[in-house]
Amino acid sequence: MTQRTLGTCYYPEHWPEEIWPEDARRMVEAGLTWVRIGEFAWSRIEPAPDRLDWGWLDRALETLGAAGLKIVMGTPTATPPRWLVEKLPDMLAVGPDGRPRGFGSRRHYCFSHAGYLDECRRIVTLLADRYGAHPHIHAWQIDNEYGCHDTVVSYSTAARDAFRDWCAQTYQSPGALNRAWGNVFWSMEYDDFAQIDLPTATVTEPNPAHALAFRQFSSDMVVRFNRAQAEILRARTRAPLLHNYMGREVAFDHYAVGADLDIATWDSYPLGFLEDRVPASDDGRARFLRQGHPDMQAFHHDLYRAVGRGRWWVIEQQPGPVNWAAHNPAPLPGMARLWAWEAFAHGAEAVCYFRWRQVPFAQEQHHAGLLRPDSAPAPALAECRLVADELAAMPDAATARARVALVFDYASAWAWQVQPQGAEFDHFAICFAFYGALRRLGLSIDIVPPDADLSGYALVLAPGLATLPDGFCEGLTGTAILGPRTNAKTAQMAIPVPLPPALPGLDTVVELVETMPAAGALPLAQGGRLVHWAEQLGGTAEIVEARADGRPALVRAGKLHYLGGWPDADALDRILRRACAAEGIATLDLPRGLRVRDTDTHRFWFNYDMKPVRFEDREIPEAGVLWEAL
Amino acid sequence: MTQRTLGTCYYPEHWPEEIWPEDARRMVEAGLTWVRIGEFAWSRIEPAPDRLDWGWLDRALETLGAAGLKIVMGTPTATPPRWLVEKLPDMLAVGPDGRPRGFGSRRHYCFSHAGYLDECRRIVTLLADRYGAHPHIHAWQIDNEYGCHDTVVSYSTAARDAFRDWCAQTYQSPGALNRAWGNVFWSMEYDDFAQIDLPTATVTEPNPAHALAFRQFSSDMVVRFNRAQAEILRARTRAPLLHNYMGREVAFDHYAVGADLDIATWDSYPLGFLEDRVPASDDGRARFLRQGHPDMQAFHHDLYRAVGRGRWWVIEQQPGPVNWAAHNPAPLPGMARLWAWEAFAHGAEAVCYFRWRQVPFAQEQHHAGLLRPDSAPAPALAECRLVADELAAMPDAATARARVALVFDYASAWAWQVQPQGAEFDHFAICFAFYGALRRLGLSIDIVPPDADLSGYALVLAPGLATLPDGFCEGLTGTAILGPRTNAKTAQMAIPVPLPPALPGLDTVVELVETMPAAGALPLAQGGRLVHWAEQLGGTAEIVEARADGRPALVRAGKLHYLGGWPDADALDRILRRACAAEGIATLDLPRGLRVRDTDTHRFWFNYDMKPVRFEDREIPEAGVLWEAL
Amino acid sequence: MTQRTLGTCYYPEHWPEEIWPEDARRMVEAGLTWVRIGEFAWSRIEPAPDRLDWGWLDRALETLGAAGLKIVMGTPTATPPRWLVEKLPDMLAVGPDGRPRGFGSRRHYCFSHAGYLDECRRIVTLLADRYGAHPHIHAWQIDNEYGCHDTVVSYSTAARDAFRDWCAQTYQSPGALNRAWGNVFWSMEYDDFAQIDLPTATVTEPNPAHALAFRQFSSDMVVRFNRAQAEILRARTRAPLLHNYMGREVAFDHYAVGADLDIATWDSYPLGFLEDRVPASDDGRARFLRQGHPDMQAFHHDLYRAVGRGRWWVIEQQPGPVNWAAHNPAPLPGMARLWAWEAFAHGAEAVCYFRWRQVPFAQEQHHAGLLRPDSAPAPALAECRLVADELAAMPDAATARARVALVFDYASAWAWQVQPQGAEFDHFAICFAFYGALRRLGLSIDIVPPDADLSGYALVLAPGLATLPDGFCEGLTGTAILGPRTNAKTAQMAIPVPLPPALPGLDTVVELVETMPAAGALPLAQGGRLVHWAEQLGGTAEIVEARADGRPALVRAGKLHYLGGWPDADALDRILRRACAAEGIATLDLPRGLRVRDTDTHRFWFNYDMKPVRFEDREIPEAGVLWEAL
Ligand SMILES: [Zn+2]
Ligand SMILES: [Zn+2]
Ligand SMILES: [Zn+2]
Repeated sequence: MTQRTLGTCYYPEHWPEEIWPEDARRMVEAGLTWVRIGEFAWSRIEPAPDRLDWGWLDRALETLGAAGLKIVMGTPTATPPRWLVEKLPDMLAVGPDGRPRGFGSRRHYCFSHAGYLDECRRIVTLLADRYGAHPHIHAWQIDNEYGCHDTVVSYSTAARDAFRDWCAQTYQSPGALNRAWGNVFWSMEYDDFAQIDLPTATVTEPNPAHALAFRQFSSDMVVRFNRAQAEILRARTRAPLLHNYMGREVAFDHYAVGADLDIATWDSYPLGFLEDRVPASDDGRARFLRQGHPDMQAFHHDLYRAVGRGRWWVIEQQPGPVNWAAHNPAPLPGMARLWAWEAFAHGAEAVCYFRWRQVPFAQEQHHAGLLRPDSAPAPALAECRLVADELAAMPDAATARARVALVFDYASAWAWQVQPQGAEFDHFAICFAFYGALRRLGLSIDIVPPDADLSGYALVLAPGLATLPDGFCEGLTGTAILGPRTNAKTAQMAIPVPLPPALPGLDTVVELVETMPAAGALPLAQGGRLVHWAEQLGGTAEIVEARADGRPALVRAGKLHYLGGWPDADALDRILRRACAAEGIATLDLPRGLRVRDTDTHRFWFNYDMKPVRFEDREIPEAGVLWEAL
Repeated sequence: MTQRTLGTCYYPEHWPEEIWPEDARRMVEAGLTWVRIGEFAWSRIEPAPDRLDWGWLDRALETLGAAGLKIVMGTPTATPPRWLVEKLPDMLAVGPDGRPRGFGSRRHYCFSHAGYLDECRRIVTLLADRYGAHPHIHAWQIDNEYGCHDTVVSYSTAARDAFRDWCAQTYQSPGALNRAWGNVFWSMEYDDFAQIDLPTATVTEPNPAHALAFRQFSSDMVVRFNRAQAEILRARTRAPLLHNYMGREVAFDHYAVGADLDIATWDSYPLGFLEDRVPASDDGRARFLRQGHPDMQAFHHDLYRAVGRGRWWVIEQQPGPVNWAAHNPAPLPGMARLWAWEAFAHGAEAVCYFRWRQVPFAQEQHHAGLLRPDSAPAPALAECRLVADELAAMPDAATARARVALVFDYASAWAWQVQPQGAEFDHFAICFAFYGALRRLGLSIDIVPPDADLSGYALVLAPGLATLPDGFCEGLTGTAILGPRTNAKTAQMAIPVPLPPALPGLDTVVELVETMPAAGALPLAQGGRLVHWAEQLGGTAEIVEARADGRPALVRAGKLHYLGGWPDADALDRILRRACAAEGIATLDLPRGLRVRDTDTHRFWFNYDMKPVRFEDREIPEAGVLWEAL
Repeated sequence: MTQRTLGTCYYPEHWPEEIWPEDARRMVEAGLTWVRIGEFAWSRIEPAPDRLDWGWLDRALETLGAAGLKIVMGTPTATPPRWLVEKLPDMLAVGPDGRPRGFGSRRHYCFSHAGYLDECRRIVTLLADRYGAHPHIHAWQIDNEYGCHDTVVSYSTAARDAFRDWCAQTYQSPGALNRAWGNVFWSMEYDDFAQIDLPTATVTEPNPAHALAFRQFSSDMVVRFNRAQAEILRARTRAPLLHNYMGREVAFDHYAVGADLDIATWDSYPLGFLEDRVPASDDGRARFLRQGHPDMQAFHHDLYRAVGRGRWWVIEQQPGPVNWAAHNPAPLPGMARLWAWEAFAHGAEAVCYFRWRQVPFAQEQHHAGLLRPDSAPAPALAECRLVADELAAMPDAATARARVALVFDYASAWAWQVQPQGAEFDHFAICFAFYGALRRLGLSIDIVPPDADLSGYALVLAPGLATLPDGFCEGLTGTAILGPRTNAKTAQMAIPVPLPPALPGLDTVVELVETMPAAGALPLAQGGRLVHWAEQLGGTAEIVEARADGRPALVRAGKLHYLGGWPDADALDRILRRACAAEGIATLDLPRGLRVRDTDTHRFWFNYDMKPVRFEDREIPEAGVLWEAL
């Protein structure tokens, strides 16, 4: 399964059965291989408790399969039906305001609720028993978009009770927990695990150790939930298992969920994400309004390649305007093609447009599809067909190992959300800033978990990695730049003593940290500034970059560097060019909207700008893709 | 009753009885005809359950009437007393946060609560039995400012139960409701009406069909509440019935409430509204800080003329600074006169200043009156007296039918609040933008409901009218400009297929909509831009305006136009001038603060600017009014 | 006790007992006299109900005392332990959202809860019985930072019941309360005190008289709480009693709390306060990011000197970055010294750096101390030692009585929060603006309560003093400038009639007030503008300043002035210079970051700027202090 393929998402239950065959035929005609179905259909599969209605689904599978499509079958557990909420009223997740999140949309369940987990096991068992060996089902998706709409953390009674159990198992005694969290600080000590509440609604901030533990627990509940379904499916199907992750969703550990699955897939909505979750200036937003941020998709492609241990898809690809951002512009002509090719260049096995036909009712009625609500072609259909034709000439999905690795870590994301210390300090944001700087140099990048094998990488970046795993530095073979705020915390959210970063062979210590608004940025001697976060470094390590006031900003011992602040784009550019040069990694100086990605065999150029761009001898039109054999 | 008159609002219960006669005498001296009383006095009329105290009210009516004043008697149902809340604790409205809205201000009742409705019937029956034939009462006001402080929508148990009944009556079966709302979408299907919750506190947005139904239901509850009082009063008085509506209050269908009443009145607070509900740039706000937006009052005058089927008043007119906006400046000298004359020019039968005397205690102690708290004249008193003198020379309240109609629709307001798709899309805002453009051309305008008889209008505008009534286009005789987003939804909040706008004889179809922030506005070929909202139009209709990229922006078949976007002020000016020219409607090019309004017999000029304005041969001082016989 | 001394805050329970002696030794070495302990240690003093563990505390006191340190012993009532919350679950304060404020941080108690008050009496009795005569304890601190994290106002059932009692005692009958509050206004009348709810969650604003009464009640509860502990301690110790107040905390009457104590102390965090509570422009914020606002510390020094009737300390002095503001920069080198000297120049008896050693766990792990977490010196330690050396040469803590007094009043702060009328009107903000203007003139200032003896002051300023105490004007002997909004309310939050300001011998009356956004500021004839708030003044008083439109802005009769608006900095400068000149008070024209403070014997210069400043013949480095004998 190393062919590049296309697909779509389809909801037979939304449409009259009479048009299914024609839909299937047109999918094939559009060049699609995959069709995903079923993931919101619980109320149609089981309209009432234990009353199963398989007929329509049998026929849908048959119709689609007969047309030559491969099916991804979804488990419907993201949308528990009304009767199930009636049966288990306390299964609802509870928001930070203490109110249950009501029925009437989706993802209204609490991951910690044992009764709901049993119901999921039941329906998945029924589905897998029936369809585990279905000849047209070539993959299974579990649930849908864990974490979407901020649904990982729940403040329910079920969560509270489960968290108390988790604490008991983790710490073994209240005294050990008190010591681990430092509860002596404000007389916050517990006698009994049953005294521990969720870290919410306190007068001022709760103990960050308490908050971080709850975040870790909440992530563990997602892993448990996913694993329960995976185990049932494994016993009943040989098809690969997958889940569809989201953009900038860090509330659970995707690596841990991914370890129980075969393929990582993600839902890529470049224009919606630009509006609501890209950390960029308004200026950048205006420039890329109808294209998306030029690094946002690539970042997630590289991230989910790691989560899928090499196997990954875009299972939902925006084809036109969406419905859910504050503003929902239309993509520039060409972007539906560009986005697909960019995914393939990063190693995707499949790109599936979401959805086949715009549905004229309910929440997503303004979400474009490949077809309009009246079944006429929407603009993306032709671009999809064009990509299908192009794929025929270049079907290979293999991807080269990059020479540069960027460490991304979910526990660090929680740590800095719990305790940013400066309003802008955020793990995704700093990793994305470093990633963008690498991309502007024309580099192909691997994003990796903190426990990855880093040997063989010529350059490793690990900004804001809260706690270094044992042996991290020993596993490095090339140049490494750690910091700022790397190894700054114990796993229990305390400042370690000896003080950070405590790197082997590197005599530097973070004597003091400060955070500052934009007006307080600190100039560097060689240009550019430290923004958001700055550390006063002591010790005798060799200074590579100094602040204008003479204090060290970047120090090193051999190839191991520690960076004592968050450099702005100018400074990052210089620091990274220097590191690449030292390792013999060639760099480019790309214009703002142009990006490059190499596979084993080709170099791909993507022009995210709304104007044509000329670079070296190439002219690439706006929203254009160019590839060259290496 | 077609005389132009003045009045005021008075609360005898706030003042010692000894000063009532002098107050009454001074009201007459100020040139006032009307005095409104009683609307917040429940705790004085009925200090304890079933203990009625009529004496003071009898004497107040007699004192005021004896002085020669006509009385508007208010029903006190906007301020249920504390003992009533004790009796019916669940009568309190519930806010979107799920908390009951407490006693201690006003409007704390839930429109859906049957017990409170019975209490209102009881007190109104008592009032009407006693005073229905009172010789000094010449009109009755029911309740006070429906919807003020966001009080139409309530999330109470009473509302939930009543909404379930409403759904049952509207849809007849859960299956029919599921189909109408598209509940299959996310397994949101119901088996029983008792499963339907109010559309609040869901994980992500609730089904827009669900939300719209709840908005329609909430409006129906207001109509029911008002009608219950109207029926009791009708049986006991021959005086006209009225209610005092608010500015930019769209949470209930004013046309439907108005159908049960004789006169529409409204509460006009130009400076407070400028600060807190006019959709204008900050720049505009600064320029009109002490005058109000030059179109805000006129818009509501024209709207409430429609609601009152020709009969309408300003029953509360700001006389000086108010207390409730974020900033509360003083009107420029002259504005209290200008605002009154503007109302008369739009056909008002009465303008009543709120309030007679500034009350030195409780919530509105910083709300100016015609008198200061120490009974000395406040600045507006002299302006009021001047208007009274001027009225003597021009007493006629008749108003001409305009040649231009703008359709304003409450259901559309709900639809776009439920599903704006782009953050700025709002029915009031787009109608107000079109209205302002017409006003800058010097036109007199009728605002009309969507089911109005439109024959005879030379120009009809219907932007953002969610669902066209049957026969709408057939009823047009002049030029019409529909769109953007007109006829874009079924009454069940779905996208109709065939796709919008589906206008007879006009071959155009909305293939795709996009919304964009300010930086994404789309230039038009002839100048100006589409802002907020843009549609890609397909079809063969004649193109009147194109976008700079060549796509159609305004198309037509004969006189029927469809506009595929929200034009900025420059573009609207051109589009409307062209349409007026085609119909032979003369237009002006008014300076920013100058406005015109014609009656049957006169042209009125209003200068909202803080500087004198010269136009053609006229010089009009700041805050000045000029009239010329036609 | 009139020596200038230094100290620190220490938590022996956070550290291994083995290092206490070395810590004590180093404190003495650093030049410290005082060490404060105990105020968060309830869970260690009483780990379970009635199980007391005194041993560690006995040993800590002995170790510190033996090293030569004087101890401030804190009562631990700001951090009730978990078992106590279990015993008294309704002791938790309730937030404005109606939710109990949970265990897990600090200050989670409701001041009105009688059961918790009894528990506090119990633990304080135990402490005082044991340590009241301890030879090393030289002062007692009661609780910690009343009001911090917005904890004065609680919406609990305990608070509601206590408020009803308070109302009954204050007003004696519901009828009297109804009249006092003007409850007739919207039928808000009560029959029974048991009907009165807390003024929250009403549909629109509650009656401001109701809201103000609740604020006065809430303050009274703090006084009661503090007094209960003070009485127990008085009976058991001869050491002075103190409490540590906060910056810009106005939710309770500090004068009233202070009346039961001997010394006022406060917690001074110049950089944190600049970020989160100084009313200043962003421009100013950038300039003073690492120094703090040049008037914020001085204002509180002068305020708490009044609260302490002359005796006051800085008991928590920021030594480096803190953890709790949105951004937490590091102080410029020199600031830890400057802040200490500024406190001494204003008469402080002690300055204690918070905290001795940065604690690497729990909520404040990023709060700097004099030591780093690894016990190495943090930057402030050397500055502390330097101050200690300098103190040896200038040990006197006496302070001169100033010639200028500014009246600051907590009830006014509540009144304007309840009813700002214009968004920016705030008692602290206007007093701080006037204070800053005086400071820029080089003046030393006394801040005084409204009932202070004002005879002997050459200049008295009383802006926004809601209600003048009886005899206020009669007690003035110098020039006085009252207003704007001074004497504008009765104690029951009504507008008095005759109208304000009703000053003896001054024929001026506030005919009308207006509030305006920045764009609506009103120019003055002599330059500068009235911002935020402007009054139309009538009457025959002599006009000192007029608006550009000719209306009076500042009037007077003899030395008594009334100011009808909020002057901007330019206008204030002129008004205050004129007043000083009339009284023969010499003024300076200080550059932006330079400030002056005189004691009996010396003039101190403080340069808050980040650049050296030259003034007259002096050159003062950035973050520098200079003193000259007078
Ligand atoms: Zn999605
Ligand atoms: Zn009103
Ligand atoms: Zn503190």
